[in-house]
Amino acid sequence: MKKIINDPLDVEQEMIDGFILADSKRLKKLGDQNIIIRQKLNPNKVALITGGGSGHEPAHIGYIGFGMLDAVIVGSIFTSPPPKMIFDAINAVKTDKGVLCIVKNYSGDVMSFEMAIEMARSKGIKVDKVIVKDDIVNQISEIGGRGVAGTVLVHKIAGAMAETGADLKSVKEIAERTINHVRTMGMAVSPCIIPASGLPSFELANSEIEIGIGIHGEPGIQREKFTTANEISKKMLDKILACLNYSKNEVVLMINGLGSTPLMELFIINKFVQNYLQKNDVEVYDTMIGNFMTSIEMAGFSLTLLKLDEELKKYYNSTADTFALKK
Amino acid sequence: MKKIINDPLDVEQEMIDGFILADSKRLKKLGDQNIIIRQKLNPNKVALITGGGSGHEPAHIGYIGFGMLDAVIVGSIFTSPPPKMIFDAINAVKTDKGVLCIVKNYSGDVMSFEMAIEMARSKGIKVDKVIVKDDIVNQISEIGGRGVAGTVLVHKIAGAMAETGADLKSVKEIAERTINHVRTMGMAVSPCIIPASGLPSFELANSEIEIGIGIHGEPGIQREKFTTANEISKKMLDKILACLNYSKNEVVLMINGLGSTPLMELFIINKFVQNYLQKNDVEVYDTMIGNFMTSIEMAGFSLTLLKLDEELKKYYNSTADTFALKK
Repeated sequence: MKKIINDPLDVEQEMIDGFILADSKRLKKLGDQNIIIRQKLNPNKVALITGGGSGHEPAHIGYIGFGMLDAVIVGSIFTSPPPKMIFDAINAVKTDKGVLCIVKNYSGDVMSFEMAIEMARSKGIKVDKVIVKDDIVNQISEIGGRGVAGTVLVHKIAGAMAETGADLKSVKEIAERTINHVRTMGMAVSPCIIPASGLPSFELANSEIEIGIGIHGEPGIQREKFTTANEISKKMLDKILACLNYSKNEVVLMINGLGSTPLMELFIINKFVQNYLQKNDVEVYDTMIGNFMTSIEMAGFSLTLLKLDEELKKYYNSTADTFALKK
Repeated sequence: MKKIINDPLDVEQEMIDGFILADSKRLKKLGDQNIIIRQKLNPNKVALITGGGSGHEPAHIGYIGFGMLDAVIVGSIFTSPPPKMIFDAINAVKTDKGVLCIVKNYSGDVMSFEMAIEMARSKGIKVDKVIVKDDIVNQISEIGGRGVAGTVLVHKIAGAMAETGADLKSVKEIAERTINHVRTMGMAVSPCIIPASGLPSFELANSEIEIGIGIHGEPGIQREKFTTANEISKKMLDKILACLNYSKNEVVLMINGLGSTPLMELFIINKFVQNYLQKNDVEVYDTMIGNFMTSIEMAGFSLTLLKLDEELKKYYNSTADTFALKK
């Protein structure tokens, strides 16, 4: 394990402290807990909250700020935060307009958020949730896919609408519309290493890749022979395009590095993806390339397509001023 | 070699094509050459040009746009572009106000740019250059250090002033002031792999790190025992702080990932760096953390400190609208 860290047991806390110090104009910590909130909360808007395990940097702390999130609850690496912490966050940023929790679809996260929301409602706080499930693999019957990189686009679009002073019902609706319009698939050429154990999350030969990985170090749905960027991208795109009718529609394309993927490779992937989408009559309105939702130092990438309509496009284009995303 | 690419010999071209497709609102290619220019050139400002080998993504293409660069000449991986290409770029973006070339201090780059500038001047084009040498190691007598991540801050500040319509002399002066005020040092825990050869640029045991590396895969000035993030950062900061009198001054701090460094590690490093700078009476005005100037998939980071004055701060804060940096 060749990580540039100090004590493996301190990585989350040092990361969180370092993140706040990097952006102390926008961020502050709520008391002693790993609840990060905006320096300047706006009492006249729906407050947006998300959370989950750490290890996905810059998600989600990096998306706190104007036009995106108000609070993030940060758990240990790949571990859901407890309900009481989520309740404290809801309580800290609540407004008369209400609070919307954006929850990634993992049983731990969903359970913690549901319990916290119940606690908050029993105190008379107006709060609701949406569940992001953009991953097209690992669809567990009616539970749907996991929440992965597409979550950032839910932050972006719901956050932009919340900033206009829209009511909770409308912000929830547009978040759900975004969720219904966004699909993601990921692959990895190498695993991540959980700091506390020092062990890789799976073993992969030099000739192999994992297709359909998530963002918690889990292996994919299929182990395949390592091939070219173009062949890998085509296989992933075909699966995404089969999920929704993207044809003759504008999309936001996100090519997301999973932690240690060189940017050069993401641009090479983009060349193929843009041409292939064009051949399939899908119009790329905007392209995001970078590390938006990572899995510590996993090498690999995910492809996300968000199908736009006029309203989603408007909020996608609205001003966002956060550490990790500016518009 | 487990790179997500197609033919190793096509990586530069596919990367460049993919980059332009990712940002076709801002970027276009000049003819068939790997000269990338702004879609909308402004004839009423000094044009800013840079260039060099590829492998440093998002540098430099990602810094083309309002408030930063007008043209970038992209060579093969880690290879200077030929003078004729640089001349063509100068000729394509020249304005009555003049052209300023921002050159990283490598003998190949400097020679190519000097020859191109001579060709341009012989055609009556008003053109000048500055040489960035922010790396505090590998100072070769009067030639000075290599140009590394601090170059991005030169793009930022000179680009912001150029946008105001300032004359060539003033833009050159502020670029040189930035160069005189910026210092960088880098380290690596693993090398990069040149695609064409498939070989690592150096061999490093699991217990070793390279201190004082550059951005072309070369080993550092010293091989040391792998230790903690804090000890590594302290050693690097002490060397940087010894170069300039940063005490009681505001600085921009850049913590730059070299290609495959997880963001989590950069934030952990930041925690120590912020505290250590405070102890040394250096006030961090702003912090940049991310992959700004990489070395393909090298794992490691560089630390950059830019000593601010009121004018540098003003231009640092000015609007920039590029793929890789927005202000």
